[in-house]
Amino acid sequence: MSDWAHLASAPCGWLADPAPPESAVLSSRIRLARNLTGSAFPQRARQSDRAATMRKILDRTQGIDRLEGGVRLTLDGLERVQRQFLGERQLISQEFVDAPEWRAVVVGPDQTHSFMINEEDHLRIQAIRGGLDLDGAYRAADALDVDLDARLDYAFSERFGFLTACPTNAGTGMRASILVHLPALVRHKEVERAFEALRGKSLTIRGFYGEGSAALGNFFQVSNGATLGCREADILDRLDRATRDLLAWEEQSRDALWTRARSLLEDWIWRSYGVLRHARVLTAEEALKHASAVRLGVGLGIVDVPVGVLNEILVQSQPAHVQVASGATETSQANIWRATFVREKLTRADT
Amino acid sequence: MSDWAHLASAPCGWLADPAPPESAVLSSRIRLARNLTGSAFPQRARQSDRAATMRKILDRTQGIDRLEGGVRLTLDGLERVQRQFLGERQLISQEFVDAPEWRAVVVGPDQTHSFMINEEDHLRIQAIRGGLDLDGAYRAADALDVDLDARLDYAFSERFGFLTACPTNAGTGMRASILVHLPALVRHKEVERAFEALRGKSLTIRGFYGEGSAALGNFFQVSNGATLGCREADILDRLDRATRDLLAWEEQSRDALWTRARSLLEDWIWRSYGVLRHARVLTAEEALKHASAVRLGVGLGIVDVPVGVLNEILVQSQPAHVQVASGATETSQANIWRATFVREKLTRADT
Repeated sequence: MSDWAHLASAPCGWLADPAPPESAVLSSRIRLARNLTGSAFPQRARQSDRAATMRKILDRTQGIDRLEGGVRLTLDGLERVQRQFLGERQLISQEFVDAPEWRAVVVGPDQTHSFMINEEDHLRIQAIRGGLDLDGAYRAADALDVDLDARLDYAFSERFGFLTACPTNAGTGMRASILVHLPALVRHKEVERAFEALRGKSLTIRGFYGEGSAALGNFFQVSNGATLGCREADILDRLDRATRDLLAWEEQSRDALWTRARSLLEDWIWRSYGVLRHARVLTAEEALKHASAVRLGVGLGIVDVPVGVLNEILVQSQPAHVQVASGATETSQANIWRATFVREKLTRADT
Repeated sequence: MSDWAHLASAPCGWLADPAPPESAVLSSRIRLARNLTGSAFPQRARQSDRAATMRKILDRTQGIDRLEGGVRLTLDGLERVQRQFLGERQLISQEFVDAPEWRAVVVGPDQTHSFMINEEDHLRIQAIRGGLDLDGAYRAADALDVDLDARLDYAFSERFGFLTACPTNAGTGMRASILVHLPALVRHKEVERAFEALRGKSLTIRGFYGEGSAALGNFFQVSNGATLGCREADILDRLDRATRDLLAWEEQSRDALWTRARSLLEDWIWRSYGVLRHARVLTAEEALKHASAVRLGVGLGIVDVPVGVLNEILVQSQPAHVQVASGATETSQANIWRATFVREKLTRADT
């Protein structure tokens, strides 16, 4: 089995791991930006330098225990749909999808920790956890960071901390983010007010699916802004507290919906369940929208579907995931395949 | 138990009786217009005369075997919603709903045969059968007609046949009609062409639910036009043949849909099933529309729901039926009750 086939068929470790009280948080993610001494930052480097950097990192990072059983992929050996698949799975950035030359990604066995080579920085280390678990994600990223540090010479300054291609990432080089599901706040049109409050705390928010403000499925990514001059623990703590405030706000909104319009809420959720459970043709946007509603229903105790199953539907219903799994190149065929996949997932969860 | 309560809780005999090859036909109905000699037609009669006619007919028609176990209702003893219920069940006309004075309806035990007193004519005898069974409906109407004829003096002329308030009904006084479900013809926009062909055969077509041409749920009523100068057998034969032509046309359209757009067809039907099976709030129009789609799915072998269950949903989901069964006077409450009713029907059919 090729590395690619191995990765594409393997489950996503963090999907099966929802933490019930904070189940409105889909995932917690840490990214660490690291660079090597003596090599130009990727955007400034000549092709030959980038090639040398990639080879050096790939060579020196073999045999790391926590990566055993994972895969190492050079991006220009992959088709575009395969790169999109990796993007949908949050293992690589959009830049990696669009420009694969002299870039690689190394992924641990359950896809919860990985690193990109030659993104904006030489190294982008990533760890991801299901639910709200920034500490867990940080510990995993930090452990991988230690492993890599032992094999590579990091560019580090006593004054600025880790040196990065873009100065806004310098210092800790850490970007912490959570992916949160806020359907009640969106429904109440309170989401903008909540986000204003977050921005006041130097946090950044963006819709996770869909461009700009159209946050398809009501999923949002909240992450820290500044990294320079802050300690990791402070950043994590600030994001964790802001997330819990956001969850409390969402919770209040859910209670209000429940009290004021329970039947309409139940109807909305059950109709979404009905579409997922019975449709024979399903677009990616519909799958996301309806899985989002059912996820809210699970949170409210209206419908009983394992959150892990819904998370799996969210991930596996994405366009490149469906194309890779089905081999379908036409949208109409992909939509049929997606409907079948979702239906079978829910049917199995039902029995 | 009052006569009303007895009727409202009794099942509709013809609903449980779908004839599979012609299951696109919901029901076959015969109405016979009859009048008494020596009494003015109802519209021309004074109130006291109408009262006398009603009492006479009610008195003389007691003890008829085939009506044993049925009910006898004077309309002005009923609330408007109860009259609407009778209208929805096709036991009385809209005129009876709107103007109940000195009017009555006598209904046989399983609601498949009945007669109205003081509609446009003194008597409107009705028999109804599930599926395409005009002969069966005619035999039942004729048998009740014979019973009534033996107890009442019918106005009959050797030259004109049965005399009726409106000359277009004279002769046989018979109106034969079928209620047919033509979703594929509607979808293909061929229904108007089909109706043109019927009009050429002196048949009348109208949308059954909803006003005018907006035939909600794709149900249509086809009936004979002229009754004067025709024999009953010829009228029935003509309508039966025209119906079979229509069914063949609908069948062709269904085949074309199946061949050309099978996935979209399945999707349409299963999403309708999903709404009926899971919605928590359901309007009468939605219930009709989606039950119509599922009924098509049963005809095509896509979904397996007993046609009798769908027919029951069609009848029991109507506004007055829901109001009577639930006691709900607010639409929002009625919509919740309807969703629960439909869901439970389908859940039971599923297991």
